[in-house]
Amino acid sequence: MAYYQAPLRDMRFVLNEVFQAGDEWAAMPATRELTPDLADAILEEAARLTRAELFPLNQSADAQGCRFEAGRVATPDGFKEARRTLAEGGWFGLGGNPEHGGQGMPKLLTVAFEEMLYATNTGFALYPALNTGATLLLDHHAPEPVKRVYLPRMYAGEWLGTMCLTEPHCGTDLGLIRTRAEPLPGEDTTGQARYALTGSKIWITGGEHDMVDNIVHLVLARLPDAPAGTRGISLFLVPRRKLDAAGEPGETNGVSCGGLEHKMGIKGSATCVMHFDAAEGVLIGEPHQGLAAMFTMMNYERLSIGLQGLGLGEVAGQSAMDFARQRRQGRAPQGAAEPDQPADPILVHPDVRRMALDIRAWNEGGRAFAGFVAGQLDRARLHPDAAVREDAEALVALLTPVAKAFLTDRGFDVTVEAQQLYGGNGYCVEWGAEQYVRDARIAMIYEGTNGIQAMDLVGRKLFRNQGALVARLVERVRSELDAQRDPELADERRRVSEAVTGLERATSALLARARGDAAELGAAAAGYLSLLGHVVYAWLWWRMMTTARQGLQQQGPSGDAFYRAKLAVGRYFLTRLLPRVESLEQEIGAGAETLMALPEEAFYPRD
Amino acid sequence: MAYYQAPLRDMRFVLNEVFQAGDEWAAMPATRELTPDLADAILEEAARLTRAELFPLNQSADAQGCRFEAGRVATPDGFKEARRTLAEGGWFGLGGNPEHGGQGMPKLLTVAFEEMLYATNTGFALYPALNTGATLLLDHHAPEPVKRVYLPRMYAGEWLGTMCLTEPHCGTDLGLIRTRAEPLPGEDTTGQARYALTGSKIWITGGEHDMVDNIVHLVLARLPDAPAGTRGISLFLVPRRKLDAAGEPGETNGVSCGGLEHKMGIKGSATCVMHFDAAEGVLIGEPHQGLAAMFTMMNYERLSIGLQGLGLGEVAGQSAMDFARQRRQGRAPQGAAEPDQPADPILVHPDVRRMALDIRAWNEGGRAFAGFVAGQLDRARLHPDAAVREDAEALVALLTPVAKAFLTDRGFDVTVEAQQLYGGNGYCVEWGAEQYVRDARIAMIYEGTNGIQAMDLVGRKLFRNQGALVARLVERVRSELDAQRDPELADERRRVSEAVTGLERATSALLARARGDAAELGAAAAGYLSLLGHVVYAWLWWRMMTTARQGLQQQGPSGDAFYRAKLAVGRYFLTRLLPRVESLEQEIGAGAETLMALPEEAFYPRD
Repeated sequence: MAYYQAPLRDMRFVLNEVFQAGDEWAAMPATRELTPDLADAILEEAARLTRAELFPLNQSADAQGCRFEAGRVATPDGFKEARRTLAEGGWFGLGGNPEHGGQGMPKLLTVAFEEMLYATNTGFALYPALNTGATLLLDHHAPEPVKRVYLPRMYAGEWLGTMCLTEPHCGTDLGLIRTRAEPLPGEDTTGQARYALTGSKIWITGGEHDMVDNIVHLVLARLPDAPAGTRGISLFLVPRRKLDAAGEPGETNGVSCGGLEHKMGIKGSATCVMHFDAAEGVLIGEPHQGLAAMFTMMNYERLSIGLQGLGLGEVAGQSAMDFARQRRQGRAPQGAAEPDQPADPILVHPDVRRMALDIRAWNEGGRAFAGFVAGQLDRARLHPDAAVREDAEALVALLTPVAKAFLTDRGFDVTVEAQQLYGGNGYCVEWGAEQYVRDARIAMIYEGTNGIQAMDLVGRKLFRNQGALVARLVERVRSELDAQRDPELADERRRVSEAVTGLERATSALLARARGDAAELGAAAAGYLSLLGHVVYAWLWWRMMTTARQGLQQQGPSGDAFYRAKLAVGRYFLTRLLPRVESLEQEIGAGAETLMALPEEAFYPRD
Repeated sequence: MAYYQAPLRDMRFVLNEVFQAGDEWAAMPATRELTPDLADAILEEAARLTRAELFPLNQSADAQGCRFEAGRVATPDGFKEARRTLAEGGWFGLGGNPEHGGQGMPKLLTVAFEEMLYATNTGFALYPALNTGATLLLDHHAPEPVKRVYLPRMYAGEWLGTMCLTEPHCGTDLGLIRTRAEPLPGEDTTGQARYALTGSKIWITGGEHDMVDNIVHLVLARLPDAPAGTRGISLFLVPRRKLDAAGEPGETNGVSCGGLEHKMGIKGSATCVMHFDAAEGVLIGEPHQGLAAMFTMMNYERLSIGLQGLGLGEVAGQSAMDFARQRRQGRAPQGAAEPDQPADPILVHPDVRRMALDIRAWNEGGRAFAGFVAGQLDRARLHPDAAVREDAEALVALLTPVAKAFLTDRGFDVTVEAQQLYGGNGYCVEWGAEQYVRDARIAMIYEGTNGIQAMDLVGRKLFRNQGALVARLVERVRSELDAQRDPELADERRRVSEAVTGLERATSALLARARGDAAELGAAAAGYLSLLGHVVYAWLWWRMMTTARQGLQQQGPSGDAFYRAKLAVGRYFLTRLLPRVESLEQEIGAGAETLMALPEEAFYPRD
């Protein structure tokens, strides 16, 4: 009943036409050998594999969930085999460092694969997603001997990584962490100093499961001499099983799983309570610099969670359209469209169209946005020109919280709207639509809640540099609008330009207020993130529309329906969704007083 | 972990201060004996009862669900006892016709009880809600002997009613119904002609369960000579067990349950597939007038489903605030608020305040809105003055689709925002927050999807009378704004007034366009409903604020914190939520072309 084909045509459009990936890759030594043809072959195979191996397990994994018994976690039926198939194809190391066995593919390409993973089976996708995050971190911060032993096995999907941050009393506020690490005598098999870790962590994705021989935990903890707060947190690698002299998993470590969380969705993902009882580990990076190390991978991980929103929005939308194709109810407003049938297809109804176009406008805009951020991540890391790297880093810093929060907010909305399209069927489990809503909901919460993303945006990314990053983005958009003056898109250009002006106005006003009162930033945060998200989507829709116009001109008047659809959906976005920026500007301008007027007690229930 | 106290102070405020219920009831013969003191005693007992009997069963019923075995349905543990306790207290007949054993309470009072039912246990609440709908229908349309036999037992909660409309191929489009009714010789025990009904119905709430001896199905079906489409549908009463000569449940009827739906939420509610196999029933109302009969109760039922959104929003919000009271993370923007604690309470963060105020603004605005519509329903049915009745009927007609759709859309949003406030805990089952999201989701779908409500609004309630009903509402709001010129609320009055002007502008523009193209109504429907909802809430917030100001003036400067909170939340609504109307006006104005430009095939997935 659920339906999914990887949107390859749209992915190619974003890669090759909108972002000219071939030129991009040719300009960077690390990706010089990656041609559009090779990239396309990878995408085709990724589409085939995720559809064949993961998609059929999605609903059954939701129904079955993970099971906890005697300290062990059993994953849903089929997960073990799917892990093996993906591992054999080298997919766990697709973006990994080639020096240690990774495939070295750029993020601009791997985002498409990640989108497919989340679309076909989010519960499964989280195991490779966490592993990718863990390998990124190790590749940046681990001592060389540790990398040599761990990375090849993790890129091969033989061992999988986790991130152990949260404790029962602290999620957002990691400064409160209590897990401790005590130095031990001697060295581990990689020649590193050993530490004994003790404490409990919660919400550990893939903390324990039956898919691999060893699990590689990256754990935040405090050294004995650690200063209080976030400046006293260090990062450790703690394997489930210690490695023997040959680097193979040997005796068990002091790591145990205390149970599974019962969750609203992503039921195929094992969310574990983990106990560390003098578990042996090694330090990754410098003492007390654990949070800083974490942050080097945050930009990647937050984009990845954004892709969860996008992938679920895409599969929910496709499934809803597959339902719409089969469902007839009522008649077109002008009279029967198919009088020989008992009723017309539901897409004759303008309000059903509205939902279908919302879904497409957000999904296709989101894919372009994810592609843009991914391309900048590649430039920031791989480009030979320092000025290009610096510019890309600035854009990544600004847009990462937007990518995480806006893609997941919109992804959730899309799954809810797709569910609505089914009528009552959408509420029944068998159709699959309600699972997408439940699976999408978590993406707004974890990896830093969307409220935290908004605070990061207005605090570190806006106020700290007094709007310099936003100004740089605005300049870039304006120069693009100026360079492309297709008269057929004059009205569209005006709409994008006005939205940009509104963003500038809201930014100056907010900065001025925030200089007087620190609460002003938080009061505007969520609205400002949403405003920036709308403006960036508007710009990228504009770019997609000009690209589509060029495509049509090359093909002549009988041009591809794909380009015509792109223009129609773009117009829908600019005329019906973008106007939201006007109310957002007012909301941002309302100020902190509207929030802080009530005393705290006025919010709490009276017993 | 979930927390709920019926918001009695707020309910009294709406009843007694905002709508002067005492005067209202004194003006109508049927409610003349109902004093505010009596009403208050009823509310207090309702609050106690729902909290003691239903609230403790809410999470366990969700976990356990209903079970289907050998044609019978077992409800979750505790439901049978709760049904009995409510029945003994007369609560099933609270709003019922006193001539047949009902308590005769007006809707303005019963909405508060219904809100409590949904808040404490939506899965359970649906059984009495459906029963209330069925008794309303019978009271209006059944022959007197049928009423005499059935109504007293249904008001007593001894037998419970259902509504059997949907069939697998038709939900929204009831014209496609296939269930048939054939005349049988002889009469039933009430002296009515008998019919044999054959067909299958789906999504029948309470179609089969173990709480009562008999279930009274109200079934839409076609007579042999029925014209095609919606003008050929008749309504029948079909009991699970036929009544014997003494009017007691006797032999089984040809009614059987084919199974239960597996749903996203409301798992305590038995959603049944029902088969009618030459089941014996009697006609209710005139032949072929079944849909018209249904519509007499629609205004009540649709408001009731709106109350599901409100009740779930209220309990979700209270529970989130109870969590907030216990949770400390991070520090206030200006520096530590409680430096001796490891972290500050999360309500120091402006963005957490924003969520908390969204929740309150929508819940409290929604309660006033539900009260207003309920009061008009009472006037329309019970007021001695024909002009008052007519005016109330007009308002009810206009506002019923808004009450159903806007209250449930906002209710769902509120449960999602409340869940967000918990961070990761909100996604874990034990806290209860995620259940409220799942339980609230269905309210946007059933009893006519919110898209159907929007079509009803712009079609029957707006276009058919060329905006006369909206003009009447606008006139009423304007005269209220003119009459109350508290200088302290001048800015607020301006905001409400501008929103009303925007509504008028959007209405005229839409009517003009719709005269040229029938698709224009559908294209604007959802946005128009939301616009009207925002404007009505703005007006009612204005009314609540002027009421609170009067309350404060009577109390002097040390006035009640309740009134001060009401003013603060009202300001929040008007400055931060109401601005949405500006983008809605643009969305409505975008026109049908933005939706209909793409050919239908462009929406369907390509295989």
